Amino acid sequence: MDKILRIDVSGDGAPKATVTDLGDYAGMGGRGMTSMVVSKEVPADCHPLGPENKLVIAPGLMTGSAASTSGRISVGCKSPLTGGIKEANAGGQGGQVMARLGYAAIIIEGEPKTDDLYKVYVNKDKVEFTQVNEFRMMRNYPLADKMKAEYGDKVAMISIGPAGEMKMCASSIAVTDKEFRPSRHAGRGGVGAVMGAKGIKVIILDDNGCKMRKPLDADKFKAANKAFVSGLRGHAVTGEGLPAYGTNVLVNIVNESGGFPTNNFKQGQFDDAAKISGETMAELQTKRGGQPTHGCHRGCAIQCSGIFVDKDGNFVSKQPEYETVWSHGGHCGIDDLDTIARMDFMDDDIGLDTIDMGMTLGIVMDAGVIEFGDKEGAMRLLEEVGKGTPMGRILGNGAAFTAKAFGIERAAVVKNQALPAYDPRAIKGIGVTYATTPMGADHTAGYAIATNLLKVGGDVDPLSTEGQVELSRNLQIATAALDATGYCLFIAFAILDQEETFNAMVESINGFYGLSMTGDDVVELGKKILSMERDFNKRAGFTKEDDRLPRFFKREALAPHNVTFDISDEQLDSVFNW
Amino acid sequence: MDKILRIDVSGDGAPKATVTDLGDYAGMGGRGMTSMVVSKEVPADCHPLGPENKLVIAPGLMTGSAASTSGRISVGCKSPLTGGIKEANAGGQGGQVMARLGYAAIIIEGEPKTDDLYKVYVNKDKVEFTQVNEFRMMRNYPLADKMKAEYGDKVAMISIGPAGEMKMCASSIAVTDKEFRPSRHAGRGGVGAVMGAKGIKVIILDDNGCKMRKPLDADKFKAANKAFVSGLRGHAVTGEGLPAYGTNVLVNIVNESGGFPTNNFKQGQFDDAAKISGETMAELQTKRGGQPTHGCHRGCAIQCSGIFVDKDGNFVSKQPEYETVWSHGGHCGIDDLDTIARMDFMDDDIGLDTIDMGMTLGIVMDAGVIEFGDKEGAMRLLEEVGKGTPMGRILGNGAAFTAKAFGIERAAVVKNQALPAYDPRAIKGIGVTYATTPMGADHTAGYAIATNLLKVGGDVDPLSTEGQVELSRNLQIATAALDATGYCLFIAFAILDQEETFNAMVESINGFYGLSMTGDDVVELGKKILSMERDFNKRAGFTKEDDRLPRFFKREALAPHNVTFDISDEQLDSVFNW
Repeated sequence: MDKILRIDVSGDGAPKATVTDLGDYAGMGGRGMTSMVVSKEVPADCHPLGPENKLVIAPGLMTGSAASTSGRISVGCKSPLTGGIKEANAGGQGGQVMARLGYAAIIIEGEPKTDDLYKVYVNKDKVEFTQVNEFRMMRNYPLADKMKAEYGDKVAMISIGPAGEMKMCASSIAVTDKEFRPSRHAGRGGVGAVMGAKGIKVIILDDNGCKMRKPLDADKFKAANKAFVSGLRGHAVTGEGLPAYGTNVLVNIVNESGGFPTNNFKQGQFDDAAKISGETMAELQTKRGGQPTHGCHRGCAIQCSGIFVDKDGNFVSKQPEYETVWSHGGHCGIDDLDTIARMDFMDDDIGLDTIDMGMTLGIVMDAGVIEFGDKEGAMRLLEEVGKGTPMGRILGNGAAFTAKAFGIERAAVVKNQALPAYDPRAIKGIGVTYATTPMGADHTAGYAIATNLLKVGGDVDPLSTEGQVELSRNLQIATAALDATGYCLFIAFAILDQEETFNAMVESINGFYGLSMTGDDVVELGKKILSMERDFNKRAGFTKEDDRLPRFFKREALAPHNVTFDISDEQLDSVFNW
Repeated sequence: MDKILRIDVSGDGAPKATVTDLGDYAGMGGRGMTSMVVSKEVPADCHPLGPENKLVIAPGLMTGSAASTSGRISVGCKSPLTGGIKEANAGGQGGQVMARLGYAAIIIEGEPKTDDLYKVYVNKDKVEFTQVNEFRMMRNYPLADKMKAEYGDKVAMISIGPAGEMKMCASSIAVTDKEFRPSRHAGRGGVGAVMGAKGIKVIILDDNGCKMRKPLDADKFKAANKAFVSGLRGHAVTGEGLPAYGTNVLVNIVNESGGFPTNNFKQGQFDDAAKISGETMAELQTKRGGQPTHGCHRGCAIQCSGIFVDKDGNFVSKQPEYETVWSHGGHCGIDDLDTIARMDFMDDDIGLDTIDMGMTLGIVMDAGVIEFGDKEGAMRLLEEVGKGTPMGRILGNGAAFTAKAFGIERAAVVKNQALPAYDPRAIKGIGVTYATTPMGADHTAGYAIATNLLKVGGDVDPLSTEGQVELSRNLQIATAALDATGYCLFIAFAILDQEETFNAMVESINGFYGLSMTGDDVVELGKKILSMERDFNKRAGFTKEDDRLPRFFKREALAPHNVTFDISDEQLDSVFNW
């Protein structure tokens, strides 16, 4: 992983590839790499769909090695949704394959002269471009079928659906999983639109003939990795809850807490939560012969990403994540897992962020376009997004855009990005993260739910205003560093609770790179990444006024606790205190 | 004009009226009044369509008096389009009638509990509210017919069309003219949406039994006003060009300069400009029996607001203003005045800003939805806005929104507001105003065209980077003050060129209010208003990054002069230097 592939789409004809060494970017990976490239090379005031923006794809520092659960890939750019810096993170095989090909980053730059679409094929010997206008408006699953027929299913595919081609702000970039399904997505911030603006429909990464990345100190690495896996397997969340139920284990927990946003954030509990819970899903899938326990990439020790099948045992979609179940479920008043799984598939197929898309459906329900709970109506509207009808153009640009189109205030967004599945009034730590992360509302940027509800890494009362800022700060720092390593965020449950597992992770990195990093170095890396990101946003025109939740969270009390979001602006402004 | 009418829409049932004295707002009028109320009473970070925003309607300080050409009315709020402070300015009879009723401001506040629509009727004795749900989605012209049947045509009407009801960001507030036509609009910034969010469909102002406002020093006022009128009549622009041709006299002038934005800012000259020029329009209308010379309100000495009739002599619309002819004409590649006048009528009827709406049509042409020059297509799309179809919801939210919906970079907007009819690359002074005015791109905020092209108030080469900042600064200050007086901006041509006319205006105010203001006091008033506005925007999260033109103006050279916008960011940041 000692080179960078630059793809310039701005010349005549096909894009041009250049391979360079790492230069200034040596030692960076994942989010550290994407944020550093965007920060250094993209003018902060450029148009996200214009020639000055760049799309950066980077595996984590440990990705492509034998390090357990480290297959994440980061996608960065100036976001068409937020107008700020963006890192969207995905699982699947793309990161592993790309890392083994030796590329620490693919940087797509420039502006095409025509609207031709291109395929990029990368193997150990070459980078090849093919015009693929015949794939225009093709969805991700049929595209995967075409690619599988051409390249087999051992390669990895990174692609956009029609949403990315139409440059929609809720468009994602799909990454294929172990079974070559385009089911893992760099979902947030409209990264698919930037790939679409560059005229790249699909990237095929073929690591045939490449080897697993080798550690510098094999013994140290092997021992640390073993201890690390043992730590993951021994923790209740990573060793039991997630493998058994997937992330959707959270429905009952969050609903019980009174922080499960229902009917577009009108209530904090959903009467029919039990019908869509992780426990119900696992029971249903076990009965139907689905696969509740399954990993999104090879080498994962957690295996939270199941497969959802219909009553006849046929594949419907990947097992929808908790946030997807919430956004298309309780948020929309929909209580049917089969419908939710079908919408999850449609999102993946069209190439959409399931959080922003589900949020959007609830907003048009609130605006009276369809009724809350209207399953058929919701699927019909989603289909319009894939077709690019005028209604689809509205919805595909996400929650904030749709609220504006229909003239309603109630859009739970920060920096235009939809809030995920946790009401910040009843779970205040996550509210601090939503408000302040440079990414726009994002639970993964500093997952305070861990400590507010799951009591992992401590215990901070979700309803109190005390301790939330410090909690969010520490989690945001740790996450920024973690997102640079390629380790899955879910290892956080184990490393926050178990010091020896944290140490095993650090030692794995040290063994791999021949370093002697400490926990303090990890913290410094996290701070460095956040500082770069905040500096970019500042240059893009962001101020502390952008680090705020929508006012209705401060005005309207949420049942059952009857709480508002009462973390003060001064508290929010104290998060980044270094 | 010694009282304020507050209308609170938030209680049960009909809105409630309270009449108060002026308090802190004594001595303020027009834009000074609206910006001061918004600045003091509206939380800068509120949602423009939420309960904390207020709609402020205020006649100018001289409005309702015998002062010539002083009938302007200001409408202020936090703008749904820009997210910053907004003053939109209109002619018509509304200001005069309201001022004679004694109201220095109407402030509409709160959030309705239901979606009922209300009519407000104000006469010298009472303020009355009537639920008018039967007018839902009624357009402005049929609404005027209904009101005329009920109240006659001596009252004034302030109303919203379907666009305001649908809370669209390009929605305007209509004000009736001398013939009770809803043809004068507070057009910019989506002020109609705020009136819609308050549930107020129409305000009838009835000054029956009220007298013309009396000057404190009648002799001084009368003499000064006489000198002022004589100055207006003696100047080539206000005494000849505008009365004969209306504002559309500018087509040939701006086209000749190479700053007439054509086909969505791709060229600086329109081949068919002669077909849509003011000279052609005046000739056509004289032949048809239209009325090229006609005032928008009683007491106007300029008479630039003509009436446009069809070949059979039937009313089509008011004579479209230059910016409307440009936005629906050259910008869209449309060269037919009859089509442009019909679209002008549709905009007024639906309640839309003709600048943002025309800009939007050119953008969907650029995006390939219809072809440049497609007259029928453009009218069909406009009709969709009035009906609120999904396509209409996109377009009605304006140029920036529409560009986002269709994923194109090329939207000539600042602070989300569409640039008017002058290309900033070829006429750089107006570019400074577009970039820096707190209002979002707005030619009226500091009309550098006067000096760059018309050589009024000096001569600053439009293609040079020299002198533009000072020019824009001085004009922005003068305009802010002028917008507080109620005098029409068009008097600026005469008062910039003729010192005695400027003095006559100041003496008119002094005579009316018994003051002894000097020119310096006028400058101080302008600075005070601008400072309040900029402070609001800062609190709303605006930074210097918001005071920029879209990057394509810096990147793409404009024919025929092959110039980019090369005023530096540092120059732009030096405009407000006090």
